[in-house]
Amino acid sequence: MSATPATTPVRLAAVAGPDQPEPTPALEQLYRGFEQELLVPLWTEIGDLMPAHPRSRAVPHLWRWDRLVELAARAGDLVPVGRGGERRAIALANPALGGRPFATPTLWAAIQYLMPGEDAPEHRHTQHAFRFVVEGEGVWTVVGGDPVPMRRGDFLPQAGWNWHAHHNATAAPMAWIDGLDIPFQYATEAQFFEFGREEISAAERIEPDRSRSERLWGHPGLRPLAATALKPGSPLLAYKWEFTDRALADQLAIEDEGHDATVEPGHAAVRFTNPATGADVLPTIRAEMHRIVRGAETAPVRETGSSVYQVFDGSGTVTVGEHTWSVARGDLFVVPSWQPFSARSEAGRTDSDTTAGGGALDLFRFSDAPVFAALGLDRTQKDS
Amino acid sequence: MSATPATTPVRLAAVAGPDQPEPTPALEQLYRGFEQELLVPLWTEIGDLMPAHPRSRAVPHLWRWDRLVELAARAGDLVPVGRGGERRAIALANPALGGRPFATPTLWAAIQYLMPGEDAPEHRHTQHAFRFVVEGEGVWTVVGGDPVPMRRGDFLPQAGWNWHAHHNATAAPMAWIDGLDIPFQYATEAQFFEFGREEISAAERIEPDRSRSERLWGHPGLRPLAATALKPGSPLLAYKWEFTDRALADQLAIEDEGHDATVEPGHAAVRFTNPATGADVLPTIRAEMHRIVRGAETAPVRETGSSVYQVFDGSGTVTVGEHTWSVARGDLFVVPSWQPFSARSEAGRTDSDTTAGGGALDLFRFSDAPVFAALGLDRTQKDS
Amino acid sequence: MSATPATTPVRLAAVAGPDQPEPTPALEQLYRGFEQELLVPLWTEIGDLMPAHPRSRAVPHLWRWDRLVELAARAGDLVPVGRGGERRAIALANPALGGRPFATPTLWAAIQYLMPGEDAPEHRHTQHAFRFVVEGEGVWTVVGGDPVPMRRGDFLPQAGWNWHAHHNATAAPMAWIDGLDIPFQYATEAQFFEFGREEISAAERIEPDRSRSERLWGHPGLRPLAATALKPGSPLLAYKWEFTDRALADQLAIEDEGHDATVEPGHAAVRFTNPATGADVLPTIRAEMHRIVRGAETAPVRETGSSVYQVFDGSGTVTVGEHTWSVARGDLFVVPSWQPFSARSEAGRTDSDTTAGGGALDLFRFSDAPVFAALGLDRTQKDS
Amino acid sequence: MSATPATTPVRLAAVAGPDQPEPTPALEQLYRGFEQELLVPLWTEIGDLMPAHPRSRAVPHLWRWDRLVELAARAGDLVPVGRGGERRAIALANPALGGRPFATPTLWAAIQYLMPGEDAPEHRHTQHAFRFVVEGEGVWTVVGGDPVPMRRGDFLPQAGWNWHAHHNATAAPMAWIDGLDIPFQYATEAQFFEFGREEISAAERIEPDRSRSERLWGHPGLRPLAATALKPGSPLLAYKWEFTDRALADQLAIEDEGHDATVEPGHAAVRFTNPATGADVLPTIRAEMHRIVRGAETAPVRETGSSVYQVFDGSGTVTVGEHTWSVARGDLFVVPSWQPFSARSEAGRTDSDTTAGGGALDLFRFSDAPVFAALGLDRTQKDS
Repeated sequence: MSATPATTPVRLAAVAGPDQPEPTPALEQLYRGFEQELLVPLWTEIGDLMPAHPRSRAVPHLWRWDRLVELAARAGDLVPVGRGGERRAIALANPALGGRPFATPTLWAAIQYLMPGEDAPEHRHTQHAFRFVVEGEGVWTVVGGDPVPMRRGDFLPQAGWNWHAHHNATAAPMAWIDGLDIPFQYATEAQFFEFGREEISAAERIEPDRSRSERLWGHPGLRPLAATALKPGSPLLAYKWEFTDRALADQLAIEDEGHDATVEPGHAAVRFTNPATGADVLPTIRAEMHRIVRGAETAPVRETGSSVYQVFDGSGTVTVGEHTWSVARGDLFVVPSWQPFSARSEAGRTDSDTTAGGGALDLFRFSDAPVFAALGLDRTQKDS
Repeated sequence: MSATPATTPVRLAAVAGPDQPEPTPALEQLYRGFEQELLVPLWTEIGDLMPAHPRSRAVPHLWRWDRLVELAARAGDLVPVGRGGERRAIALANPALGGRPFATPTLWAAIQYLMPGEDAPEHRHTQHAFRFVVEGEGVWTVVGGDPVPMRRGDFLPQAGWNWHAHHNATAAPMAWIDGLDIPFQYATEAQFFEFGREEISAAERIEPDRSRSERLWGHPGLRPLAATALKPGSPLLAYKWEFTDRALADQLAIEDEGHDATVEPGHAAVRFTNPATGADVLPTIRAEMHRIVRGAETAPVRETGSSVYQVFDGSGTVTVGEHTWSVARGDLFVVPSWQPFSARSEAGRTDSDTTAGGGALDLFRFSDAPVFAALGLDRTQKDS
Repeated sequence: MSATPATTPVRLAAVAGPDQPEPTPALEQLYRGFEQELLVPLWTEIGDLMPAHPRSRAVPHLWRWDRLVELAARAGDLVPVGRGGERRAIALANPALGGRPFATPTLWAAIQYLMPGEDAPEHRHTQHAFRFVVEGEGVWTVVGGDPVPMRRGDFLPQAGWNWHAHHNATAAPMAWIDGLDIPFQYATEAQFFEFGREEISAAERIEPDRSRSERLWGHPGLRPLAATALKPGSPLLAYKWEFTDRALADQLAIEDEGHDATVEPGHAAVRFTNPATGADVLPTIRAEMHRIVRGAETAPVRETGSSVYQVFDGSGTVTVGEHTWSVARGDLFVVPSWQPFSARSEAGRTDSDTTAGGGALDLFRFSDAPVFAALGLDRTQKDS
Repeated sequence: MSATPATTPVRLAAVAGPDQPEPTPALEQLYRGFEQELLVPLWTEIGDLMPAHPRSRAVPHLWRWDRLVELAARAGDLVPVGRGGERRAIALANPALGGRPFATPTLWAAIQYLMPGEDAPEHRHTQHAFRFVVEGEGVWTVVGGDPVPMRRGDFLPQAGWNWHAHHNATAAPMAWIDGLDIPFQYATEAQFFEFGREEISAAERIEPDRSRSERLWGHPGLRPLAATALKPGSPLLAYKWEFTDRALADQLAIEDEGHDATVEPGHAAVRFTNPATGADVLPTIRAEMHRIVRGAETAPVRETGSSVYQVFDGSGTVTVGEHTWSVARGDLFVVPSWQPFSARSEAGRTDSDTTAGGGALDLFRFSDAPVFAALGLDRTQKDS
């Protein structure tokens, strides 16, 4: 058993103020009694704990991809990957969350970096995870013995408690982002973790173009009969860019033909779902890809819960609360709970193609929405 | 919009240690880069964030009911109840949670106190809540216009976003406990709050023996046909002690007759459920009543997630992790995530009755289990 | 394996008519080809198979209780109860369903009759069943070893594949009605059946006032913690009249106080539900009790699926399609799919009590609604 | 309102037999009383209604595709398609189901035939339907304004109450099979039907390679964000052969590599599912494609509920109960409830390819399994 956590005293001050009892000596004495008995009254805390609407402790913030890659590459030189540290992952620390590696109060987002020939050792944990590849290729994630290739645009979910390891099979380093529900499971105290085998076997070092999971589950609307008892989270271990790109292009083409298909004009979007249930790809994490065509702008939306975005392609400006940033490929930013968010695709280009590379702004997004949906706490508001 | 939260710096130290990279000037320089870019590596944090099993930040702790009532009564003299402070509620502050009014990382538990003739004003909030009455009577909670009486042993759930107020219709003060998911909604940032009407109407000041909700939903297995679209959480606003007591006595009687009915020998238990769905009474809070007959002892159990217990009747000893306490009516204690818990009913009595007052230890319990169940994070382990 | 069912030829006639092809020798030859190959064209059948709205093969019909009891009593003298015949049950045969013992195309309704001291042997079957007692008492149904008393007003569900037997412990014969989904399972061919033990044990011949199932599951909103893995259908084996009566009276009292509680003015109703899930008490059968106060009349309603009603108390007139009958205690009638139904409580009485016996018309109803709901085929239309 | 159905008398005979009461004059008199009151006792019917296991009224039967096409083509010459008859569909009539167009007690299977340039008029109905194309192409089904192409191997679900029409845009006739739950909805009396517009609009006569539904929903694991409120049944209106074929080939390749992927050795299978839910493609109909490699044989299996199979490719022998048939492309046969079924792929070929055309036997199957699953009546037994 771990050492007992350090205890901290209760500190109460009887102060004058609206809605506060008159600060008398008797009240001071009462507060000393509260402190002694480890009690805190609601009336001194209600404004913080029960606000009229969510007021996030987190703040909007932007991290530039080139700086992340630069530092990750430097870590590649200095920090070995192995048992104990487990991963060369460097996490975004929201500036208002106490210096902790929490992008938002519920979400972890990190750049992971693997050098040529390196392995990241096998382990498993209850934290739900995914990887998303904004550039590069050459790493395989081995999940329960199934090698899954990782390439630009691929989304790779990793539901909790599955064994997994990585190996870089190429001569170049590779970087990608990891998303997990580490802060949520830290807050709720649900975490289990186990070390796996020390070595990836030779049979797992093959480099297939498609994982077995994709060959079983990656056919639209088709369920393999042999798969019966299912664990939580998606059995499909990779959502290849080829399909995501085509789905977005299809929506925009249907919109051009005059039919409903997009979220709003010029804004296509898909959600990554568990093909066995149609539900979110992970029990605690929602993941989506959005495409905003040149010149289009999304309407500001507030939602309960927080999101992390990464620019996959194109460029534009994004507005989170009172912050507006110009963004380009790889940049990451957070949208705290109930902060309005909108995005605008850069209008300066001249080509007319609506596919990726054709001027559209492609935004990868992940959020804690399934937690809110499961508990009936989800709310959305379009600011107009 | 609220003031921007204060930002906090990232602080990293390159230190020697197992699983840590060698603390060189180059590593120090890398860490300065991380700090500047608001980044934190996994390898310095993994032990805290991804433990082998949940290691709660909270600690087991016991609050004595007589001290709570004494301080609440003193607050009754000094602290008025009204708009702004909203409630004369005094919350348990777990000694290891930074002096905040959090019994556990997810649960709020408070004693509420209402003086003769006092009203607590109407409001509503997304936080799910309940009241449980360990002694006294005379307060009515008015929920959406329906006056609900509160008496010893009654459990009164209050699902989020329902208007509610209280009024004390008697000549004596009354105390009870409130349970809410305030810390959970604070962690996930889901909270909304609205003030309601300033006054409880005369029509709502009637003092019925049963609320309309009980008359509609309080008949076993019978659903009113007129009730169709349902909000989250139980439509039954009071679970009267009379029924809870009888249910526990029935289980023990069936056990005596040689049939399965109890959790383990001498340990009866019921869960308060939503009669419209059979699910937990609130989306984020589970509530149960346990009865342990004289001389019986429960097997130690660990569970993910945390609980708060209140002794409703009888006396005995409870063990939480490395703590063992003698407890009596009204005492409250917390069981942090994955800490083993067991209870023993006091054996010194001579009577043989198994109903309340007959020597059994009756424990009211509430926990965050529905959150864990909804997200597939629930685990239980019997220590043997 | 059973004998092969007899084959029947296809017979087609080329006839002149709207929407029919011209009856030529070539068409006749084509139809002979269809017959030879066991084929039937849609165009000769569409009117019957795909009507604009459900047109039931069944017809509304009324059976008088006194005649049923008279014949059942005569059967009590002449027909022994034992292994093979299994039950002295006499089923309603809808006059338009070919002389088969089908009250409606999906529902079986029968009077069952047990003589003093008689046993009905143990068996189990996949057909879902219930008993409802319009008069008398003294029989116990033993379900999985749990003796369940049967008294006037009690509703006793019996989900499929549970062992059950009956024994009459008194000196008087007893009659009640059985409802099952026999025609539905006959149509879909889902049935399994097994003989049980030859004798009810002495330990099962006790005559408790409440079954163990009631003592475990019959407390409003309270779930026994020890009950975990559940079979389909309600674990509560009796819904006693005392609770049903009170629930109906409560609804009418709330209506009198000016609040919503009833289906329509003067019409209270409860549905029997599975306390573990809140869903219908049986997977294929819905059961309800309706109370219509003196002088009140229900609005005509059409629903997909069929119902069987039994008058539990009071008297009045009921209208099913083009039929109107005066009805009294015990009378049974059927409402075929999509036939409008309304009921009127007799107005000639002078007392003002709204409870049973006070002039209200109490109607017990069962239907196949859960089948329609599970498959998205449920529709309701209020005729105005 | 339709004409009242004809009534039919009850006929009972007091006969000697095991489990039957002694045939005395008194019993005869009782039976006359039953007949007069429209009553039928259980003891004369129990063997038929409550068998030890399902004994289908239907029998196994085989229809040869060449004969079906020949007769359908002849109907193409003689029978116009238009409002009233609605479709040139010719249904399989199980030889033991009274000459009615029911392939099984719950399933309709028909060949539909459309001549060059012909339209089948728009309508909608609550019956759930699909089309499956064993050969040919050139017809588009227009569903809610969305033209869906039909080609060999394509499976096209059509959930109830969607408007749909067909038009043949080519110079050749086209045949395909329709599967519906007509007998099930006839048995339960749930049917509604409406005529649609008289003409398919010019805008709907376009001939896209992919329907809009496929462009929105046909990307593996990707859900269009714009699609929110969903009707029952799959929003994906075509499951193209290209994907089905690849999914089956992938399973067999994974099996060859030594990993689990197939139902049993040499037997790959996929189920067509609703991508929004992962559930069966239609609320009342399950549809699957099975591939059995050369020389492989499936283990005999019994299931509650009935199936219709069509040979899509290859040849082999199939065994249903006591019947064994050699089958080839297009042949259709039925498997009644609880009849054992197995299939063997023809072994005489010499090539080694496991894809379609390479000697494998491809069987398309549809069944009423979702009805049984929704109601907890599904059972499967492997005969060994």
